[in-house]
Amino acid sequence: MPVHECSRGLYNFAPMPVISHRGSSMPPSPIRKLVPYAEAAKKRGTKVYHLNIGQPDIETPKAILDAVRHTDMKVLEYSHSAGFESYRKKLVQYYAANNVEVNHNQIIITTGGSEAILFAIMSCLDPGDEIIIPEPFYANYNGFATSAGVKVVPIQSTIDENFALPPISAFEKAVTTRTKAIMICNPNNPTGYLYSEEELRVLRDICLKHDLFLFSDEAYREFCYDGRTHISAMTLEDMEDNVILLDTISKRYSACGGRIGAFVTKNQQVLDAAMKFAQARLSPPSFAQILGEAAVDLPADYFTEVHAEYNARRDLLVSRLKAIPGVKCPMPGGAFYAMAELPVDDSEKFCQWLLEDFSHNGATLMMAPAAGFYFTPGKGGKEVRLAYVLNKEDIGKAMDCLEEALKVYNKK
Amino acid sequence: MPVHECSRGLYNFAPMPVISHRGSSMPPSPIRKLVPYAEAAKKRGTKVYHLNIGQPDIETPKAILDAVRHTDMKVLEYSHSAGFESYRKKLVQYYAANNVEVNHNQIIITTGGSEAILFAIMSCLDPGDEIIIPEPFYANYNGFATSAGVKVVPIQSTIDENFALPPISAFEKAVTTRTKAIMICNPNNPTGYLYSEEELRVLRDICLKHDLFLFSDEAYREFCYDGRTHISAMTLEDMEDNVILLDTISKRYSACGGRIGAFVTKNQQVLDAAMKFAQARLSPPSFAQILGEAAVDLPADYFTEVHAEYNARRDLLVSRLKAIPGVKCPMPGGAFYAMAELPVDDSEKFCQWLLEDFSHNGATLMMAPAAGFYFTPGKGGKEVRLAYVLNKEDIGKAMDCLEEALKVYNKK
Repeated sequence: MPVHECSRGLYNFAPMPVISHRGSSMPPSPIRKLVPYAEAAKKRGTKVYHLNIGQPDIETPKAILDAVRHTDMKVLEYSHSAGFESYRKKLVQYYAANNVEVNHNQIIITTGGSEAILFAIMSCLDPGDEIIIPEPFYANYNGFATSAGVKVVPIQSTIDENFALPPISAFEKAVTTRTKAIMICNPNNPTGYLYSEEELRVLRDICLKHDLFLFSDEAYREFCYDGRTHISAMTLEDMEDNVILLDTISKRYSACGGRIGAFVTKNQQVLDAAMKFAQARLSPPSFAQILGEAAVDLPADYFTEVHAEYNARRDLLVSRLKAIPGVKCPMPGGAFYAMAELPVDDSEKFCQWLLEDFSHNGATLMMAPAAGFYFTPGKGGKEVRLAYVLNKEDIGKAMDCLEEALKVYNKK
Repeated sequence: MPVHECSRGLYNFAPMPVISHRGSSMPPSPIRKLVPYAEAAKKRGTKVYHLNIGQPDIETPKAILDAVRHTDMKVLEYSHSAGFESYRKKLVQYYAANNVEVNHNQIIITTGGSEAILFAIMSCLDPGDEIIIPEPFYANYNGFATSAGVKVVPIQSTIDENFALPPISAFEKAVTTRTKAIMICNPNNPTGYLYSEEELRVLRDICLKHDLFLFSDEAYREFCYDGRTHISAMTLEDMEDNVILLDTISKRYSACGGRIGAFVTKNQQVLDAAMKFAQARLSPPSFAQILGEAAVDLPADYFTEVHAEYNARRDLLVSRLKAIPGVKCPMPGGAFYAMAELPVDDSEKFCQWLLEDFSHNGATLMMAPAAGFYFTPGKGGKEVRLAYVLNKEDIGKAMDCLEEALKVYNKK
């Protein structure tokens, strides 16, 4: 190799520019890191049941896909940076039907719920500021926090307490002078936990006492079971300046690829800041805004049917899991995820083994090792997240695989 | 007002959480800040010719809109975080036809060119690092740099030098131990300047000497005039680890609302880092990926026609501008923008006056005051950017307005 001279002195190897610390410290997606093993299994001819990712097999309503198919636009133009005004006005109706009173100027349409999370963190927290999140939590919260230089402070919810909100004392202990916000997902991904009114009041008290923002991810609002109803953080009293609602159409309408979400708040300063981030990226995608706008007009029985389907899948999945010796699985109150503790040494090793070395009737299953949803190292090492996004027949077959696999794995 | 106690002491006003410094210091879009005045003018019944924003009136090719209309998907799924593999493979053909040899694993499909810019800055620069950008430059570069805590170091290109790349000595003076990258847009927005092979070699030398990344925004690649051809930074010798190509379909196919771009590099470390940011936001929008993939198969005469149209618009706009006493306008070599110096005290005041107080035959025009494209305060105060995105008839009428307006304005 030649000797090169560059600004940093003499090198005896080819010099090259160095990536950022931020880039190297970004966490890889824990949901996607087993993907190469799944691809290899499929190449070997093994059927893989995907319970690892929240990609539903439920069909996107034809009426809303047709709204895109029937568009007669001549030019695919930028929309307003906050999204089409007609769509935002339509969403006002949607939120009103869900007991959330907002006007269309309090809504910024985002590129997926992901961008709503990013705008909230960027608008409210500076590098070095802290955000409290009950763990386990949606892993990408940490990705966006890392990209923004924000420190995640986890507080513990546990499988033994069915993942209930930790007591107020846990929050009090976690608050420092750098704490700016608390983030929740309700109903929760990955635990399926649905917060009670009392738990939301605890969050309210702590936010008001310490002047904290409350970021409330309500992507799964429609999917609450056992007759319980969802309470939006937007309805908490005296919290108009504290709450930012983070939303998405992805799960609600099986429209994950649309990349349409919403950032909703009554805090004008936050809206003004978020709008500047929104303007920098010009506009959210136009096609899927048309789809989202059409979705607000879907007949009410759309949710009745989808809800019944997820409910039945949940009941099947959880009853099958509980029937397996050594498996622990709290009943999820909402969303379409269940967390289970398995009788294995290490759930990541087990999940990889399922894809690399196991098959039953020509099939195996893919789950998300739960360690990726915990911020604290070493937590959740025997747990997995299962998304009940497949039809009941497939869930049944996936559970056959899991039952058989645990027998084989523990005999090794 | 009641007295409240909170973590920061006693307040005699209602406490509320405070937005981030990052949020308050984000620059508002200079292109969009006159929008309220334009809306008011339209409400008064005045026709507004929009030369302020790069939103072409050229129709999106019907064949690519039809590709979206004819999609038979059942579920609008997440795509791969790097974008559909089929689309990336298609783009390999597109780039090869433009003398850029890459494979599909060196391409990450992004949500607009905007996200490609963000990924490049996030992957390569840490807070406090510096990026050198010849000014005037696309204003959102500064927005993304601000959101990432990165310091923009401008070097001067001037209307008197036709916005040519500053000499290598200007770069040498600007390089510090914190410099990580140089960003260019070629052909340039806002100046329309097309870099020569010699200028690109200057950039190459400085990047290799100081181990810098070269971010090359080539959104307007197809629109070069006077028989000159575009040279991609990707073709620069020994720069495989330095160059990141930032791209978008927005301008090329009049598809701004699709929000599809690309991040292209041969540097594997950069690709790995960018993929983690890509995974955090899950996937780029699916519908417009279908459109982008179809676009690669458009017949070659699509660009022949569009190129001829922009060329004719450029010639008309520039000849009209030059015919107005006191107006200076270098001939742009590419893209669809021209910068002009006007005989006015302050171009922002003048642009606002055009919308608030002026009309000619029931119409006025909107231009982008150039100060927003300069990083150095006080620069470009008499300049405006004009986008020749309207048909020739409209451009002619807009120039009638401008000619008349300058007479009236300077008599005030």
